[in-house]
Amino acid sequence: MISVVFLGFGNVNSHLFDALVRNSKASVLQVFNRNRTAINFKSKNISFTTDITSIVDADIYIIGIPDDAISAFSESLVFQNKLVVHTSGGASIGVLSSKNRRGVFYPLQTFSKKRNLDFKEIPICIEAENDLDLQLLRQLGETISENVVAISSEKRAKLHLAAVFVNNFVNHLYYVGAEILQTEKLPFNLLKPLIAETAAKIEALSPQEAQTGPAKRNDIKTVEKHLNLLDEKRHKEIYELFTKELNQKYGKEL
Amino acid sequence: MISVVFLGFGNVNSHLFDALVRNSKASVLQVFNRNRTAINFKSKNISFTTDITSIVDADIYIIGIPDDAISAFSESLVFQNKLVVHTSGGASIGVLSSKNRRGVFYPLQTFSKKRNLDFKEIPICIEAENDLDLQLLRQLGETISENVVAISSEKRAKLHLAAVFVNNFVNHLYYVGAEILQTEKLPFNLLKPLIAETAAKIEALSPQEAQTGPAKRNDIKTVEKHLNLLDEKRHKEIYELFTKELNQKYGKEL
Repeated sequence: MISVVFLGFGNVNSHLFDALVRNSKASVLQVFNRNRTAINFKSKNISFTTDITSIVDADIYIIGIPDDAISAFSESLVFQNKLVVHTSGGASIGVLSSKNRRGVFYPLQTFSKKRNLDFKEIPICIEAENDLDLQLLRQLGETISENVVAISSEKRAKLHLAAVFVNNFVNHLYYVGAEILQTEKLPFNLLKPLIAETAAKIEALSPQEAQTGPAKRNDIKTVEKHLNLLDEKRHKEIYELFTKELNQKYGKEL
Repeated sequence: MISVVFLGFGNVNSHLFDALVRNSKASVLQVFNRNRTAINFKSKNISFTTDITSIVDADIYIIGIPDDAISAFSESLVFQNKLVVHTSGGASIGVLSSKNRRGVFYPLQTFSKKRNLDFKEIPICIEAENDLDLQLLRQLGETISENVVAISSEKRAKLHLAAVFVNNFVNHLYYVGAEILQTEKLPFNLLKPLIAETAAKIEALSPQEAQTGPAKRNDIKTVEKHLNLLDEKRHKEIYELFTKELNQKYGKEL
């Protein structure tokens, strides 16, 4: 049984905590967090500490704190030669202090406090400095996910970048859609089946096969009508940029 | 029982056809299409014609052809005073010839040939020039959907515009994500659980509540790292625009 201590308890670690606690093949020993207020434990059997000198012995330590705090925090740990991993998509394995064995355990998903997630399909991207540690991280990952992949820091950085496009930027387009409906007092609910199907299509079709719409068809009349309907300069900028991109890409294929 | 004739047989009409044929409360009498090749009938009991003078008598005629062809085509119909509707999000009810009673029957969804869709949750936006016709369209809509709404041409145009953002533009962001992974030979599959959850979140959270990421957090270091990682000018333009938008929107709230 692999024993785990969580260092920090933000969105990622608290979701990992939930998944691992429910799991019989891993043993969560302790959670460390600088302050007590953020924590709302579902299980009272697991020790909690705010004292960095009271962290217990474990096979794997999982750091879940902001990227730019990882380096200093990992340096401040009082133990040595243990396997210490972070959960960040964007930070390299090298930001961790070399006084411990270093690794990465990055679940590629968007985590919100209010959402319960099934880890089974979530890709867990692992990295370590030696084969034994990589094996251990793979074992831990496979207790909760069917999709554990070894990925270098360089590739993970690109993966995280791609994730920003398909998650953060996509969500902002949902926001713009909601704003446009709001001006007409139309409920955002009207767009939800379309949003769901747009994402579901991608399971079976490539984004290229799935693309439709006036910009792809080079339907200039509709594009002009849309630009006239857009009151907000912010919305116009987005519309013009995507129309240009889609024209360039699909125009050639016509 | 409401009788229906389809005029044109593109993506929207062929999906509507499938939904209505399966349905016992509507009767599909005929499909008209200019050429025979596009048609692949699932049911042999329904008459098909390429001759505009052979269109049979029905309660509702549903035009499913490109927006800029609707006007001339509706003018070319040889019958009068029948209820003729189009299925377009962007075209006004007024583009239809006034020699027939005019209406709109717009299912707000993205239709691909390869996807089977359940119409039950798809909003069907209806419009007509009098109450009786509106009632008839509502009745027809309710045979396949639980979400039939009367919406004016002006509001529908805005709805269609919002749909372009949450469907066409979102899908293009999926494409950019795929492109970024391709340069690292990483499989697009890695992003699919994230894409699914990003869309699923919106069922319960507003886009504002669901937003996360470096641009929202004003995490300048990660944003700079990302801009350095982006090789394609096209990708950089999108990244910079969304980062600016997200900073402006969420920066104020910090």
